[in-house]
Amino acid sequence: MDKPLIFITNDDGVSAKGLRAITEAVRKIGHVVVIAPETPQSGKAHAITMYSPLHLREVHREEGLEVYACSGTPVDCVKMAFDHLLVDHFPDLTISGINHGSNSAVSVLYSGTMGAAIEASFYGRPSIGLSLLDHDTDADFSAATQYSMEIIKKVLASDMELPLCLNVNIPRGPFAKIKGIRVCRQNRGFWKETFIQRQDPRGVDYFWLTGDFYNTEPDSTDTDEWALAHDYVSIVPIQVDLTNYGQMRSLAGLFSERS
Amino acid sequence: MDKPLIFITNDDGVSAKGLRAITEAVRKIGHVVVIAPETPQSGKAHAITMYSPLHLREVHREEGLEVYACSGTPVDCVKMAFDHLLVDHFPDLTISGINHGSNSAVSVLYSGTMGAAIEASFYGRPSIGLSLLDHDTDADFSAATQYSMEIIKKVLASDMELPLCLNVNIPRGPFAKIKGIRVCRQNRGFWKETFIQRQDPRGVDYFWLTGDFYNTEPDSTDTDEWALAHDYVSIVPIQVDLTNYGQMRSLAGLFSERS
Repeated sequence: MDKPLIFITNDDGVSAKGLRAITEAVRKIGHVVVIAPETPQSGKAHAITMYSPLHLREVHREEGLEVYACSGTPVDCVKMAFDHLLVDHFPDLTISGINHGSNSAVSVLYSGTMGAAIEASFYGRPSIGLSLLDHDTDADFSAATQYSMEIIKKVLASDMELPLCLNVNIPRGPFAKIKGIRVCRQNRGFWKETFIQRQDPRGVDYFWLTGDFYNTEPDSTDTDEWALAHDYVSIVPIQVDLTNYGQMRSLAGLFSERS
Repeated sequence: MDKPLIFITNDDGVSAKGLRAITEAVRKIGHVVVIAPETPQSGKAHAITMYSPLHLREVHREEGLEVYACSGTPVDCVKMAFDHLLVDHFPDLTISGINHGSNSAVSVLYSGTMGAAIEASFYGRPSIGLSLLDHDTDADFSAATQYSMEIIKKVLASDMELPLCLNVNIPRGPFAKIKGIRVCRQNRGFWKETFIQRQDPRGVDYFWLTGDFYNTEPDSTDTDEWALAHDYVSIVPIQVDLTNYGQMRSLAGLFSERS
């Protein structure tokens, strides 16, 4: 069998250590094309670039590996792959990451890593967002890479129903400390910000956005937050229907149709 | 009873016609605080600003109306309202829009308008994203404003269960042409891009992202796309649990926990 074609992107940028770690590992089992942002794009969510054109720059090419940098967002990178560079030969799998920092619970909404993974799943091939719970630019990705490869190989060998998009978060620490993999649901909660207010040299106020996550169900044991707090790798399968079906009936009463 | 405090934001920027139209109408029923982006932020989804500080500029102030411009994204504007400017007096309702252009179906994922509306709903007050199916900067917002005000008044007078976040899309055309309001689910489908490739004066390729929406269930009659195509205002109640519950069991089989 031919080696699979695997597309890799991220939101930390084309030179991030987490991207390099997973790229080196995935090369052993497949042909790899990387299109990653030129610059860090954390917190860019599902954003696309509408007001400026995009550039695509070849960074590196050798047998079985092509690396490009795109001037846009993580979702732009995915569109550049499926609708331009790989339009005639779709990848068998998309990987987004490994992200420096967690994307569990509601962080999936803000995450450029997961924005890219979700976008890739629209093209009818599986996608996996990978995140390590360590923001350090020089974080140790060895255990995360080992778990990621286990998940990647299982997804490639499976015949899971499509669309398939996985939000994978991996605890810090050595491989032996991690207890295994748990399939979870997204933990409920929200981020509350504290703005750090400063003055620039001309006396103008500016603000840095800094936030804390509030877990509104700390006692639930079937969530990604619980799994990560208990040294498990969490996997949440992702879908994109945001309809709140439970509210449709009461809303229909409030907004009854005119005859 | 005191007039309600209503917070308004958008993604088209502080000087957009749709923002001005809804602000003028809402002023008649409440005190209004506007924090809108300095520059157009369409397609910014749920993005937040992490790598640069934010600025907040007072644009206008008169009895019952304060208008600010924020240098960040629509979601930044919401955080600036709830975690800074209005932290001691939360608004009774958040309105995002009226957007120039539709945000139906999967566009809810890319939309800065809906990113802001979703974010606002995290703070325990209702939020409404409003979009007119007309991208024109000089679009006619008169019918859209009339329908929006009907919806806003009903939400303010209701005791709907929280969180409450509504994705409202309004067809083009005069008020008499619109048949009424329908509560819908989010239409399935995806955007496929066509990149327009050009060369800059120095011979470097660049790309403009342009897309078309593919409706994968054109015959369904309970969707927002159907409602809009049949001259109804669509309202989709929005939630943010992206868990694909239907896939959890088969995934758990694939990734069985280690003992």
